[in-house]
Amino acid sequence: MDYQGILNIIEKQLKITPITGKVADYIPPLAKVNPTHLAMYLKCTSGDEFYFGDYQEKFSIQSISKVYTLALAKEIIGDQLWKRVGVEPSGNPFNSLTQLESEKGIPRNPFINAGSIVVADGLLSVLENPKKDLLNFVRKIASDNEIYYDEKVAASEKKHGYRNVALINYMKSLNNIENHPEDVLDFYYDQCSLSMNCQQLAKSFMLFANEGKRLGTNERVFNSQSIKRINAIMQTCGFYDEAGEFSYRVGLPGKSGVGGGIVALHPKHYTVAVWSPPLNKKGNSELGMKALEELTSLTGLSIF
Amino acid sequence: MDYQGILNIIEKQLKITPITGKVADYIPPLAKVNPTHLAMYLKCTSGDEFYFGDYQEKFSIQSISKVYTLALAKEIIGDQLWKRVGVEPSGNPFNSLTQLESEKGIPRNPFINAGSIVVADGLLSVLENPKKDLLNFVRKIASDNEIYYDEKVAASEKKHGYRNVALINYMKSLNNIENHPEDVLDFYYDQCSLSMNCQQLAKSFMLFANEGKRLGTNERVFNSQSIKRINAIMQTCGFYDEAGEFSYRVGLPGKSGVGGGIVALHPKHYTVAVWSPPLNKKGNSELGMKALEELTSLTGLSIF
Amino acid sequence: MDYQGILNIIEKQLKITPITGKVADYIPPLAKVNPTHLAMYLKCTSGDEFYFGDYQEKFSIQSISKVYTLALAKEIIGDQLWKRVGVEPSGNPFNSLTQLESEKGIPRNPFINAGSIVVADGLLSVLENPKKDLLNFVRKIASDNEIYYDEKVAASEKKHGYRNVALINYMKSLNNIENHPEDVLDFYYDQCSLSMNCQQLAKSFMLFANEGKRLGTNERVFNSQSIKRINAIMQTCGFYDEAGEFSYRVGLPGKSGVGGGIVALHPKHYTVAVWSPPLNKKGNSELGMKALEELTSLTGLSIF
Amino acid sequence: MDYQGILNIIEKQLKITPITGKVADYIPPLAKVNPTHLAMYLKCTSGDEFYFGDYQEKFSIQSISKVYTLALAKEIIGDQLWKRVGVEPSGNPFNSLTQLESEKGIPRNPFINAGSIVVADGLLSVLENPKKDLLNFVRKIASDNEIYYDEKVAASEKKHGYRNVALINYMKSLNNIENHPEDVLDFYYDQCSLSMNCQQLAKSFMLFANEGKRLGTNERVFNSQSIKRINAIMQTCGFYDEAGEFSYRVGLPGKSGVGGGIVALHPKHYTVAVWSPPLNKKGNSELGMKALEELTSLTGLSIF
Repeated sequence: MDYQGILNIIEKQLKITPITGKVADYIPPLAKVNPTHLAMYLKCTSGDEFYFGDYQEKFSIQSISKVYTLALAKEIIGDQLWKRVGVEPSGNPFNSLTQLESEKGIPRNPFINAGSIVVADGLLSVLENPKKDLLNFVRKIASDNEIYYDEKVAASEKKHGYRNVALINYMKSLNNIENHPEDVLDFYYDQCSLSMNCQQLAKSFMLFANEGKRLGTNERVFNSQSIKRINAIMQTCGFYDEAGEFSYRVGLPGKSGVGGGIVALHPKHYTVAVWSPPLNKKGNSELGMKALEELTSLTGLSIF
Repeated sequence: MDYQGILNIIEKQLKITPITGKVADYIPPLAKVNPTHLAMYLKCTSGDEFYFGDYQEKFSIQSISKVYTLALAKEIIGDQLWKRVGVEPSGNPFNSLTQLESEKGIPRNPFINAGSIVVADGLLSVLENPKKDLLNFVRKIASDNEIYYDEKVAASEKKHGYRNVALINYMKSLNNIENHPEDVLDFYYDQCSLSMNCQQLAKSFMLFANEGKRLGTNERVFNSQSIKRINAIMQTCGFYDEAGEFSYRVGLPGKSGVGGGIVALHPKHYTVAVWSPPLNKKGNSELGMKALEELTSLTGLSIF
Repeated sequence: MDYQGILNIIEKQLKITPITGKVADYIPPLAKVNPTHLAMYLKCTSGDEFYFGDYQEKFSIQSISKVYTLALAKEIIGDQLWKRVGVEPSGNPFNSLTQLESEKGIPRNPFINAGSIVVADGLLSVLENPKKDLLNFVRKIASDNEIYYDEKVAASEKKHGYRNVALINYMKSLNNIENHPEDVLDFYYDQCSLSMNCQQLAKSFMLFANEGKRLGTNERVFNSQSIKRINAIMQTCGFYDEAGEFSYRVGLPGKSGVGGGIVALHPKHYTVAVWSPPLNKKGNSELGMKALEELTSLTGLSIF
Repeated sequence: MDYQGILNIIEKQLKITPITGKVADYIPPLAKVNPTHLAMYLKCTSGDEFYFGDYQEKFSIQSISKVYTLALAKEIIGDQLWKRVGVEPSGNPFNSLTQLESEKGIPRNPFINAGSIVVADGLLSVLENPKKDLLNFVRKIASDNEIYYDEKVAASEKKHGYRNVALINYMKSLNNIENHPEDVLDFYYDQCSLSMNCQQLAKSFMLFANEGKRLGTNERVFNSQSIKRINAIMQTCGFYDEAGEFSYRVGLPGKSGVGGGIVALHPKHYTVAVWSPPLNKKGNSELGMKALEELTSLTGLSIF
């Protein structure tokens, strides 16, 4: 069966799947998103593309942005970065403080909040104009200039972000934050507020499926070794304390966000983005998880 | 033997005891305190007083102030307070976040930092002029107007207080802080910056040894039931994760501070304050612990 | 008001107090105890005694026995004991393994299961005939030879004691158990199976209220220093993770057991035992806690 | 470069790599293994094989056996198994009790000790002759009858296995063990005592690289879906709290054992076994990790 046929089957299944999850409601701009949005977009390394639903409708990508900042930081800072953040799955919720205490302020991995805040702090120390530079980077790898920060989302995150203030100040007290906590969080909230659609997401992640090179031009943006390693971290840490479940059911590296988006990729084959706002108890898109599980079941292909 | 004789023995012993601890150095004003200061002051419910050393030299009382704010909050807010903070020993260091996470933002007791911050938040909601009101209260129960905040200490605490910012924002994220975090911490740092000497401390604690009444006038400030309960909390929680050790070795309710001060009391008998800046690994005055252990050994009297 | 008058009031109150707790049901012999039993017995250091209810009905004293073994072990082994078990409140349930792991097999205190198992192991190493010696000791300090082990209870504990097998083997793996785990547990289950009534309990604890001396004869069994210290541990650790609550509400050192018994004492004044089988969520006798709270409220006397 | 050329380079590098790790010494039979053993054996799905060193020398496979029992249990018991054990990385050492307590006796995954003990218990309930059946299964999938249990190793594990006794009794107390703890542990120790060489290991794991089919005959032993899922669990959980590191550095699913062996596989490409007894601090073969990292670096191929 071809990919479009498979996507058609997935779309039909999702539409009759009862939803038990809830849209993220910790900030008003997310709470008021229509829960019935549904989109899937798959782009092959051959250039072919397949999709259904609202794949050109933008949403808040939230934690998916952590992959962009990690890739940038790994490129600029290099392996020094691993002195400040680990690569192990946390086995704990994304905003937990407990492990951070027993491990002296070194976050387990760059995809839990504490870890991504450390990455943001690292970028703040080396980028000239962090907010602008990050946006340009994302636009470039997505080959699309119509990507913007959503200032309302960023402002709302900031207003309700007591937990992140706790995390960063805790790490600051243990000397693992270089810049002023407020500056770091401002940049972190900008990053999380990126508004993108499934097509833009899948296109921007093509670098990770194509050994670090842009599709078409074959221009190398990252070396292939770095790409493999970031994929490995997505595989073991991309879904908070549901990383094992995603790996078990889907078998692809990927990253989710509380906006209801998930991006995954099959190296050398394709990237795929799904969007459905209601989240399961672990904070991952309920239908998104199901869509990707169906995708690897129906194709019979995963990295395993 | 009379109390003065016992204090003389204690003074001699302390002077030949080798010190292995270190003065608190997390803020400059504490770090530069002369480690050789030594003072002890004991006041009986009969009115008699006994002392040695620098008992009229002021120092930063730090966490000892948590008893004042607890007493005030218990008086004004009543048992509603216990919905926001517990009365159990924590079994963890004073600034730990781990337990706070597993117990959903309700601090174990009012003498760990998180708990005292909740108490400060409670007072901020009910006092008209918290900073002034607290000072007046302490002056009144110590019968001494020469008690002041040390603004330099408060400012320095604020500048270095990342851990407390983490604690309060974490509790705020779990809805256990009513006021703005910064306002609460400002008041909390004021409270901890109170500068008092051993004599003032022992006198102010006389209420707790005298069933809630001022000595001499017999004016009732607190009801005796409240006093018993605050004494009970001092007994089980007054020395961080060394509360059991203090109870075991000394056998009196008390409270320590990182300034090197300790106040303890034998209900219906006496209050006693000691001061020696070097702290043991648990953050309690090394010689202060020893002095009080000697006191109950030599008198043969404790609450047990 | 005299003690008998106070006990009469307490009895009346308890009889109209609705019970929400449940009788311990983890072993059949405890599960089938009649939940309506109610008894209280108070013995003054003057020799006077006051009581109501089934104060001569025996029940399984369970964890109350931990005080006997601690007293014996402290006497025979001395302060070496504290290398293997601490004196700090645990802040965790009585059978928790978590803290034991982070603290390398050294239990927090001798009144959680792990700690009392270490104490039992210590006695096994030094007593000639541990089971017989312990019984003789308890009979002696209670001045009553009609005290026995309940072999059925011990056998049932052993049959269902997977958790204790886990605790002791964990400590054995960390070299904090000297004898064969099964031998230690056999002795531990014997100790917990002691069957006593309120009168016997209160009489046996008189040593702890009377500075280590037997009432009447004034024969010294323990030195007064040891007694004070064991009282201190009862105060901070006698009620599992409700020790602070008991200290706050009652204000006396004491020890509870899952058989529904509690013994408490006011040094130099009295010992008191209560029995009511239904337990609250923390595993302490619901009415027993209330009875003792009323006792110190009505007398207006506690150690604080 | 061909695989043999790559293996030759790896061999040279390993021979000049200074070893900082230590051979497992918790039981005598492991402690006395010669630390200088070194072997690597790679088998392609094409049937080609490449190797160096003592690839026909047997050693104790220890935890590598957990993959065999998981595969068997998943086949026989089906998805019911996941009610008793999870698929999430633990983020804790392999023999930790802490997480088991907070998660009510359900081990995080089948590759930590507690999880594999649950799997062994499951097999004990369904296999007619567990010890014999398991051996036959391993011999069959390795196409080699010269595979045996090492009774001395099993006996020694049993003698020193206090920690495992703790784990299983803890789970038994929480109703997650069906059989008698001693019987389960006997079977568990048998499984861990399997003595195999690199060639046998790589051949037996070919099923996992070949979609569940035996090489050559193409006989299907497991369905391909199950195989993918077990590979996914190896990827996220195969190296205790170093699973992320292995995924990051090597990028293949695999499993290690304290005997110094590691098996890994590249689905549809090859299986590979390495053996070098000295372990790093996380309990994984130091040189084994390095050999596999070199393998995926030099081939430029991993699952990512």
